[in-house]
Amino acid sequence: MPDTTSSRLDRARAMLAERGLDAAIVTNGANRRYLTGFTAEDHGPDEPAAIGIVSASGAWLLASPTNLPWAATEAAEDITCLPWLRPWTDSVVALAKDGGWRQIGVEERVLPTGDYVALRTGLGDGVDLTFLGAALDSLRAQKEPGELALLRKALNLTDEAFIGAAARIQPGMAEVQAAEIVREELRRVGSDGESFDTIVASGPNAAKPHHAPGDRVIGEGEPVIIDMGAVAGGYHGDLTRTIWFGQPDERLVTIYRMVADAMHASLGDFAPGRSGREVDQRVRDRFDAQGYGDFFVHGLGHGVGLRIHEAPSAGPASTDILAPGHVVTTEPGIYIPGWGGVRIENVVVITESGAENLTHAPIVAIGGIKETHG
Amino acid sequence: MPDTTSSRLDRARAMLAERGLDAAIVTNGANRRYLTGFTAEDHGPDEPAAIGIVSASGAWLLASPTNLPWAATEAAEDITCLPWLRPWTDSVVALAKDGGWRQIGVEERVLPTGDYVALRTGLGDGVDLTFLGAALDSLRAQKEPGELALLRKALNLTDEAFIGAAARIQPGMAEVQAAEIVREELRRVGSDGESFDTIVASGPNAAKPHHAPGDRVIGEGEPVIIDMGAVAGGYHGDLTRTIWFGQPDERLVTIYRMVADAMHASLGDFAPGRSGREVDQRVRDRFDAQGYGDFFVHGLGHGVGLRIHEAPSAGPASTDILAPGHVVTTEPGIYIPGWGGVRIENVVVITESGAENLTHAPIVAIGGIKETHG
Repeated sequence: MPDTTSSRLDRARAMLAERGLDAAIVTNGANRRYLTGFTAEDHGPDEPAAIGIVSASGAWLLASPTNLPWAATEAAEDITCLPWLRPWTDSVVALAKDGGWRQIGVEERVLPTGDYVALRTGLGDGVDLTFLGAALDSLRAQKEPGELALLRKALNLTDEAFIGAAARIQPGMAEVQAAEIVREELRRVGSDGESFDTIVASGPNAAKPHHAPGDRVIGEGEPVIIDMGAVAGGYHGDLTRTIWFGQPDERLVTIYRMVADAMHASLGDFAPGRSGREVDQRVRDRFDAQGYGDFFVHGLGHGVGLRIHEAPSAGPASTDILAPGHVVTTEPGIYIPGWGGVRIENVVVITESGAENLTHAPIVAIGGIKETHG
Repeated sequence: MPDTTSSRLDRARAMLAERGLDAAIVTNGANRRYLTGFTAEDHGPDEPAAIGIVSASGAWLLASPTNLPWAATEAAEDITCLPWLRPWTDSVVALAKDGGWRQIGVEERVLPTGDYVALRTGLGDGVDLTFLGAALDSLRAQKEPGELALLRKALNLTDEAFIGAAARIQPGMAEVQAAEIVREELRRVGSDGESFDTIVASGPNAAKPHHAPGDRVIGEGEPVIIDMGAVAGGYHGDLTRTIWFGQPDERLVTIYRMVADAMHASLGDFAPGRSGREVDQRVRDRFDAQGYGDFFVHGLGHGVGLRIHEAPSAGPASTDILAPGHVVTTEPGIYIPGWGGVRIENVVVITESGAENLTHAPIVAIGGIKETHG
């Protein structure tokens, strides 16, 4: 998508101009991909696949000889691909001297301290390094039509894979077997891998919002949380359903209803102009009134896109204001230590007037469980 | 492995004592896993799964409410799991005040600059933050017997999956189809996912050391580089073979022989006390003498373990000295832009007297190609 990337660079440059910056060093891998088109992922902050740089007049990808030919193949036309010096910070110093840059933005949320120090030393006293915060990340929050199409695809594949997996998972299987079934179904439907490590958490393990599937055997009547996602063109699906087999225990029925109702109600809460804090608070108030507020231990949701967690966030500490094109999860959950938990997660896209639900995997009407998952 | 973890903490504490440090903040995910047992992976440097801290008398895991129950389940017995304050740096400040820590080590290679600034501000003038460099990473370089067993398993699974995939991949398939076959075979043999994104690079694409498999259709007579790895218990396999179908072109025969000979010769170069720079140089000298030195564009090899790339490195800039228990790849390659390339990669473990080859996937004797991969 070279022309798409070019309009993205324009927006990055507008941000630079607004802040009086000559250039920005792009060390967040998702931002690098968004702005340059290079799809490689970092092995870690100390092992970046490449370094992106954007100035008012140019854009660069610096990469090792190992990655450079790949970067050159994928990068948009207006990106200059160069072999990096070692350390790569020396390349930035050289570009800054060539360009006469005096004000350079850095992504302090991800830029390793050692690299910052090397830049600070190499650039000398005449150059300021400015913290960008989430300025580049926020460019990715409102999705373009092409991105929305990929997110819809990822979410549809996720739904399809869940339905396939739910029909195959049976009591008596270990969590790891169930997770493998989810992965098989993700492959079957054509996902590019997993969005994140699939969670299958059964019985007391379902009291852990995050959990590595283990040898525990899934029993009857207990909650089984499945949290999974397909990937399409680098964009991440995200879906949670809680299922069970046989007769659910009474607590499960009570909690499942509360969580399902809260999730359904939240779909109507998402709207442009509303804050991520507010949509979270509405669900929190509801659970508080039911006496379960203390068991809703995480935020309501998060943006999804090139990263599985990105802006905007919907939680107690969120300062994000929802806007058309934001794609956000809504995933209320109640977790009772020692017993288990229930989480149900859909994804919405904020529209001009409200929000459109993008998730179509079934949510069980209590009583109808056997027909759906039995 | 709680007792294993405890001996690892002892080694970390010896490092602290040697450097006069009261504590270290562990923000490298592999080091955190190694020292605490918590297997969660970070979504990015700005989204750590947990923060590890080691002092002379204690060890902590700080995690979000979402991850804390999981962390508590997996962490070794002598690790104290606590919910983190937001930002997590406030938790470190509180622990430092409680402990009266004055000298704290940080991993500047991965610690985000913003977190460093928050720590610096929160801890105040009486506390020094010291850069640890690779001090904690280097604890992982010499593998324990249990780690070696997992690496052998990962490498055996990798060999088995390669053999299965090579028998199924055919000319006329797209690279992406071939990569999917590799992933299927990795699953079939029981790998926990992929070590890294599988590379299948055919024809001119094989001139790119790293490459995302695409729609290019594999033809006859041209090189096809397959770079892949299985995972066992968090430990990474790594294997590269170059295959072809039908009659290889003459250049391929020439280059394949050179690279295969170089790889075989290098197996005898690895020995304790020798430097990573030296084993790389021997291969480089060989290619130089053959007139192909300029086309060997990357280092000879890298350590493998909880990360796919870790200490020791074997390349022109390496300062590492090989020691028994180091597990290292040897992967000479020659890349001709526009034509293609050949890379062949085995893994060795350094022994008391030399090195043991851990890779057993076949390397084709020219002429015998049809029987093996045809």
